Parts: sequence; C-alpha cells; structure tokens
Amino acid sequence: MSKMTIKILAEHLGLSISTISKALKDSHEISQATKEKVRNAATEEGYMPNPYASSLRKRQSKTIAVILPEISDSFFALAVNGIEAVASQRQYHTLIYLTHENFITEKDVLKHCAGGRVDGLLISVSRATTDTTHFDTLKQKNIPFVFFDRDIEGYEAPKVLTNDYRSGRDAAEHLIAAGCKNPTFLSASDNLSVCNRRFQGFMETLRKIHPEAPLHGYHVIDCHQSSQAITVQIKNLLQKNKAIDGIVASVEELAIHSYLAASEMRIAIPAALKIIAFTTIKTAGIFNPTLSTITQPAFAMGEEAAKILFYLIDKKPEINSLAPVILPSNLIQRISTSKS
Amino acid sequence: MSKMTIKILAEHLGLSISTISKALKDSHEISQATKEKVRNAATEEGYMPNPYASSLRKRQSKTIAVILPEISDSFFALAVNGIEAVASQRQYHTLIYLTHENFITEKDVLKHCAGGRVDGLLISVSRATTDTTHFDTLKQKNIPFVFFDRDIEGYEAPKVLTNDYRSGRDAAEHLIAAGCKNPTFLSASDNLSVCNRRFQGFMETLRKIHPEAPLHGYHVIDCHQSSQAITVQIKNLLQKNKAIDGIVASVEELAIHSYLAASEMRIAIPAALKIIAFTTIKTAGIFNPTLSTITQPAFAMGEEAAKILFYLIDKKPEINSLAPVILPSNLIQRISTSKS
Repeated sequence: MSKMTIKILAEHLGLSISTISKALKDSHEISQATKEKVRNAATEEGYMPNPYASSLRKRQSKTIAVILPEISDSFFALAVNGIEAVASQRQYHTLIYLTHENFITEKDVLKHCAGGRVDGLLISVSRATTDTTHFDTLKQKNIPFVFFDRDIEGYEAPKVLTNDYRSGRDAAEHLIAAGCKNPTFLSASDNLSVCNRRFQGFMETLRKIHPEAPLHGYHVIDCHQSSQAITVQIKNLLQKNKAIDGIVASVEELAIHSYLAASEMRIAIPAALKIIAFTTIKTAGIFNPTLSTITQPAFAMGEEAAKILFYLIDKKPEINSLAPVILPSNLIQRISTSKS
Repeated sequence: MSKMTIKILAEHLGLSISTISKALKDSHEISQATKEKVRNAATEEGYMPNPYASSLRKRQSKTIAVILPEISDSFFALAVNGIEAVASQRQYHTLIYLTHENFITEKDVLKHCAGGRVDGLLISVSRATTDTTHFDTLKQKNIPFVFFDRDIEGYEAPKVLTNDYRSGRDAAEHLIAAGCKNPTFLSASDNLSVCNRRFQGFMETLRKIHPEAPLHGYHVIDCHQSSQAITVQIKNLLQKNKAIDGIVASVEELAIHSYLAASEMRIAIPAALKIIAFTTIKTAGIFNPTLSTITQPAFAMGEEAAKILFYLIDKKPEINSLAPVILPSNLIQRISTSKS
C-alpha cells in the first residue's frame, strides 16, 4: 500500500486539498456525493491520517441518544420501546439521558452527546426549556435530531407529535356531554407546547359551547415535587374552586394525583368530579373508578421518530426541510367520566 | 518542560519500561500505588505520549452507566432517580441502557460500555442471565460495577439488595393471617435470584404453618409478552387451580395483570382472592381495591449503589472485598388482603 499524502489524494481525485480535508471532517459545506468519493478513495488507497480516521470512526458510533424529561411516565417508557425496536434492527445502541425537567441538565447532556458520542438524538424537551441555542449547536455540527411528543413551538426541526389541539377539543366535548358545567384543565407547565396545544383545543371548545360559564381556565400544578406536595396543590385548587366538576389532566402524574386528592377530600368520582387524562398508563382499567383516557400512540411515535432519525443519519437531507409527523390519539371512555 | 521518553521515566522512577507502560495503560497487573506514582510523574514531567494520554483521558469520562432490564417498572424509575441524585452531585453523567431481559443485549451493552465510555456501571441483571463471563471481563479490565436489586446468586461482586427472603416470609404470614388456605407465588422467572429468594421465604413459611395444605408452589408467568397475553396466562392458571385464594406477585407487572385477570373472570378481590405484591407503584392506593404491597426502598437502593460505585471509582479497593448491602422493605396493608 503506497504512502499517500492528502496532496496526492487531491491530485488523484482532481479536488482541492481544502475540499479533501473538509470532506474527511464531514463538513456540511461538502456534498454527500463528494464525501463518499473522498472517503472511498482514502480507504482504498490506505490514506487515513489519525485525526481524520478518528473523525471517521466517530461516524460509526452506532449509537443514538434519547433525551427524556423523566422516566416514570408510561408514555416515555412505551416511546423508548418503540425507538429501541427500530434501533436494534439497525444494530444501534440506544443511550437514555434524563433531564429531570431541568434546562441546564438538558444543555449539558446535549453538549455531552455532541462530541461524536452518538450519531443522532431523539429529544423530548424539558418543561423549563425556552432557549434553543443548544439545538442550533446540534444543527451547526450536523448532528441529526428529532423532537418527539414535546417540541419547541415554532422551532424548525423534524418532529413527531400527536394531534394535541384536537384531543384537547375532544376532551372538552366529552366532559360537557357527560354533564360538566365547569371543567378545568390541569397543566404541568405553562411553557410546554404539548400542554398548551391541548389547552387551546380544550378552551376554545369550551368557550364555543359555554360562552356564559364562569371559566376556571387552566391551572399549572408543579409536578416536580413529592407525591404528597402534588396532591396538596390539587386539594387546595379544588378547595378554592368548589364549582370545578371536571378535570382534564394534561399528563399522567396529574391524573394520579387528582384521584388521590379526590379520595382524601371524599369527592366522589364521577358523581361530583369527572376526570379524563392524557396518559397511556396500563392500570387505567383497574383504577377506582376506571379512568377515561386520551391515549397517545406512544410506541408508534417512538418508532416513527427513530425512523426519521435514521433517515437523517443515512441520507443527510436538510434538517429543516422535514414537515412534522402527526399521529392521532384515541379517547377511551371509562367510568371516571360517566354521566351522572 | 523536558521531552521525556518512557525510558527516561522508567530510569527516573526505578521501574521497568514494561511496568511504566502497563501502569499507564491501567493494567490490573500493576498495583494502584504504582499506577498513581507513574501517572503523577508522567504528568509532572510532561511525558504523555498519545495512546497513553487517550487512555488517561478515558479515565475521566465522568460518566456512569445504569443497566436495566426494563424501563416500565416503578422500582427502576425510582432507583434511577436515586442513582442520578448521587451522580449529579459528583457532576457525573448517567447513561441508561435497557436489556429488555435479553442476555445477548446485556453482553453487548457491557462490551459497548467497557471501551472507556464509562467509569463504572450499576447493573440489574436480565432474567435470562446465567453466564457471568461478561462480568468477569469487567473485573479483568478494572471497570468497577455494582449489582442492585437483581444480582447473580453466589457471584462475588458489590451488591445492594433488599431483604427478599424475609419479605417473602412476611408475605406468606400476612396472607395466612388474612385467611388464605392456598396462596400461590407468581414469579417472572425461575432464574432470577431476587424472585427465588422471595419464593424461598414464602414457601418455607407456608410449609411450617400449613404442612398438610395442597401446595400450588409457584408459577412462572412470562412477562415479556403483550399485556393481553400476560393476563391470559394468569386466567388459565386460576382456571386450572380453583383452590388458589391468594397471590404473592413477585413483580409489579404480575400484580397489575392479576387484577386484570380477576376483573375479567369476575373473581372478587379480596373476598375470593387476596393479592399482595412486591412493588413501589404509586397508584397502589387508587387501585380497585387498593393494593397491599411490599415496598422496596428503591430510591435509597439506587443512592446506596451509586455511593458504592463512586467509592470503587475513587478508592479502587479489591472489587470482591465488599459485602452486600441489604436494605429492608416495608409491608403496607391495604384492602386487597383484608380478612374476609
């Protein structure tokens, strides 16, 4: 094998030294076709200087990262299973990082991932995330990523979401049909696009049907506290707003603690309070009473997000060019919203 | 800074070239004290050839891995939170890998971690794991690890467990005191040390109290199936063994599906069937009826396991020298085991 230099390789391919160098560094300035040509020639001719070899090796981490706000929500557990089903077919490893809803942790984790440790990321943003520079950095470094379930509203990136606005509307219609006069919406954050879209669908529907009703709007419950502290927040809310006769829990945690609060206050579900929740929890059917749910296609969302990520990894299209994928949720009626 | 060579460093320290080389490669053949001496001298004297520098850099991954069989069990969610509480204090990243109860995946993940990607591992073994060579490899490579909750019985390694035998005994005594004549034990595997210890405690207690009773022993339910398929297995079991009047569910999944099976078969809990489960599930109090549990100290077990791992990372004691840490579980009586 002849000892090639970058200069000889450039002459050999009829390209500039700078182009060869950038191609081997996987620069976004160079077309995919040229990169392939340069890499193939470099490999065939046995030319692989150390820093480039390492850069090439990086491209073979065969690892993707999943960034989750928390681990104890059934949605994320199912979505991860969907992601891993696709990743394992590709013989990829899946790393899971938890941000615990903390923006600094999210930034830190993304930085940690960006150093060649992974080939791409699947991200569900923390509820504290408003700044997007850490996502911009991924774009600049040509590290592909896909948002799933929780995105940044208006931020251009591949996304797999569910039909949140419509589901919020369905929840409002369902509670009103069940006899609720003053349903309220419990949100885990006023900063989460997913909760906001659900709330918009809920509130706009409510206003159409009950323009005269005293609206309790929505209430933010801080879920990043002890179980007891979450229950106390909901108890205080129900204490202060005795007219509330229905709850849309925008996340699983809020459904569980609405049940606990109602149980402690001896408020009968569904007679005095109806509850419907956005959740994929498999115990909904053995709750007392059984819980009506809007069930997201969690596994399918994970699968779809992973497929898009591998498309980005393989084909390297312009990351901003992909339209969001929206998968429908499913309202399952159980006893917690039975007509009184 | 003088340009040192490995030979000069060897002369300087009065050690052989081979010892210096092995020490810088963090070989297990070299004592910790010698490694420290060599590394300090190498750093002070500005001697750090590239491959060794990279080897040293590896020692600063500031990352630990948590190997979990699955993500959807509340025990693992809480344990990971305990682990991360300790790791984040140390400004360490925590990577989570799922084995999906698959032995090949577990081996593959450990191999993936062993290449300098992490400073140590916290492992809960898959239920398919019987061979231990992948753990031996970690020992040979001086990569510290700690088992938590699920270990390999008899295999020497640091472990954080709960008092499984005693909890199994408590479960048996509790069901018998509640009036059960033919309680049975549902296991997720006949290969999991944690299930086996719980079963031994259960069965030995049962034999002492009811030597004459027709024992149904224990039944293995394959939990790595669809929710429906798990329920069907339990329904078949209850159909064939109509004398069963009590269930100890050794894992959370089995409690949920015992409820679903009983509900579908219209078997009344607790009148006709009493259920107690090893679980930390936070919805136990809103199940219909509320579920009696043996609650493991999941968060504390995660914390303790992480503390031991950092002790191993910092102090590098002989990994086989640490005795298991046993934390007690807590029996919480609810309506599912009320006396008929």
